[in-house]
Amino acid sequence: MQALLFDGQLRLANGYPEPILAPGEALIRPALVGICNTDIEITRGYMGFRGVLGHEFVGVVQDCEDRAWVGRRVIGEINAACRRCAVCARGDESHCPERTTLGIDRRDGAMAELFSLPIACLHEVPASVPDQAAVFAEPLAAALEILEQSHIRPTERVAVVGDGKLGLLCAQVLRLPGCEVVVIGRHPERWALLHGLGIATADERRKTKDEFNEASIGSSSFDIVVDCTGQPSGLAVARKLVRPRGRLVLKSTFAAESGMNLSRLVVDEVQLLGSRCGPFAPALRLLDRGLIKVQPLVAGQFSLHHGLDAFAAASRRLKILLEI
Amino acid sequence: MQALLFDGQLRLANGYPEPILAPGEALIRPALVGICNTDIEITRGYMGFRGVLGHEFVGVVQDCEDRAWVGRRVIGEINAACRRCAVCARGDESHCPERTTLGIDRRDGAMAELFSLPIACLHEVPASVPDQAAVFAEPLAAALEILEQSHIRPTERVAVVGDGKLGLLCAQVLRLPGCEVVVIGRHPERWALLHGLGIATADERRKTKDEFNEASIGSSSFDIVVDCTGQPSGLAVARKLVRPRGRLVLKSTFAAESGMNLSRLVVDEVQLLGSRCGPFAPALRLLDRGLIKVQPLVAGQFSLHHGLDAFAAASRRLKILLEI
Repeated sequence: MQALLFDGQLRLANGYPEPILAPGEALIRPALVGICNTDIEITRGYMGFRGVLGHEFVGVVQDCEDRAWVGRRVIGEINAACRRCAVCARGDESHCPERTTLGIDRRDGAMAELFSLPIACLHEVPASVPDQAAVFAEPLAAALEILEQSHIRPTERVAVVGDGKLGLLCAQVLRLPGCEVVVIGRHPERWALLHGLGIATADERRKTKDEFNEASIGSSSFDIVVDCTGQPSGLAVARKLVRPRGRLVLKSTFAAESGMNLSRLVVDEVQLLGSRCGPFAPALRLLDRGLIKVQPLVAGQFSLHHGLDAFAAASRRLKILLEI
Repeated sequence: MQALLFDGQLRLANGYPEPILAPGEALIRPALVGICNTDIEITRGYMGFRGVLGHEFVGVVQDCEDRAWVGRRVIGEINAACRRCAVCARGDESHCPERTTLGIDRRDGAMAELFSLPIACLHEVPASVPDQAAVFAEPLAAALEILEQSHIRPTERVAVVGDGKLGLLCAQVLRLPGCEVVVIGRHPERWALLHGLGIATADERRKTKDEFNEASIGSSSFDIVVDCTGQPSGLAVARKLVRPRGRLVLKSTFAAESGMNLSRLVVDEVQLLGSRCGPFAPALRLLDRGLIKVQPLVAGQFSLHHGLDAFAAASRRLKILLEI
């Protein structure tokens, strides 16, 4: 079968072996697969992954022991946990030390004609949610993880640093409890979507305190700041914006170690919150309710056959989708 | 008057000028002053402080506009806030950007025959709490700040890394909600106190996973880990002990920047929590109720006149008190 894989370099394979149905798993024929920044990081060496890429998908179950799943349109959680250890027993399957992760860690991903995932990871997509929305369930769940981890009060002032794919989803999620939300980014051409939703914006390149204050941003003035930049420089901006006793949510992974001053974190009693995968069922509900705008996030759609071009486009633009 | 000060080097001054009574402040004659690790860090350059040291005290009000305070035995919060700005209005006086801090930042401390502090910072000490206990209110409040900031569940498993002064107080506080508590340290000669209180211990120098498991400690197995070591190496041990989705509380400041891998923090969704000064009134209540053992923490008592010897002793031992 055709598959887009990384084996030291990104390449399109034509004779890649089809997966074999394993007990407890489902074979899925993907319809759309999104390219995530994590995929791009993997092609730069992140996680040392070798295999088929892709973890944001919507598709149809082709084969499965439990015949009730066959033919259903699904999305899926990306962590395949052991479901036997103490971590899984606590309900933290996405942190199972034995887990494999779809297209990220020791498990072939969805950028192929067929791939395999445990049935326990699957969520059926309601008919009212089109493929072009359902394919956003995974990154939207990751944005929703912020609400799952932390009490976000309607009276709080929130900044999202980064106006990339994840930043635009996080801002939309954080707008829902009624918070005042400001996105700080570098791409004014993407801000019309935000302004239409009542979300303010500011240019990250105005970095001095005076310039921020002029734009009514203000250093140390946000209760919650979410870093979605994936860059040490963005993290530094985020740190400046958070108030004493505020929360700084880290949504993106990057290879470089941070030189963050932990003594200042103690003095300011700032809470640093690592945040990764999130809950799929509420993500689907929000998509179904039309509360999250994903269509404006799509920058292009390529066939799997043009996967290399798709990756080249993805590094400079919003969401690129692959049609399989 | 006599005062112990740091002006580039630690020295005892005999003709230091007495403070003048300022509006809203009280002049206090200290009875006992504790030496804290922060004092030692200051003599190494921390905060760039110049002036009289000392922020852990119990004493008697000698002069004050509000005559009702004169003659009362008091302890005091160390942050002198403006009580006018937005941060103070929110109740975060200890984070007021205009604050001075007793013996730490632009305000002479308590290691002198007389010093000044705003009346708003004072707490009267009940007659049932002796000076030798009351002098621990400030570091005990700092330990209690963990309970103030974070919901510590009785069913959680807690590790305290560091068996110094602050570590021994934090462990005692974290024992109160009924948690299982393990202190990981390097001073077995200090552990009898802990064992008597039902707190387990382990040697920090057994660093490998196998050795920890042997001692029933286990990497990644603690819900809450508190770093009280003030050392990057201790922080690294603390990071290893915290479970995915667990909390890592930073109780100590140190000059070195940490090389902590923030990407791993995201993957493990660990919460990092800076924690500093805490609530004095509950600290006094706990001392009054005899729920915290402070007497075993006292390693020595020196007169102010022997302040230099006291500092030399303090760097290698538990709490050293100065009699003024």
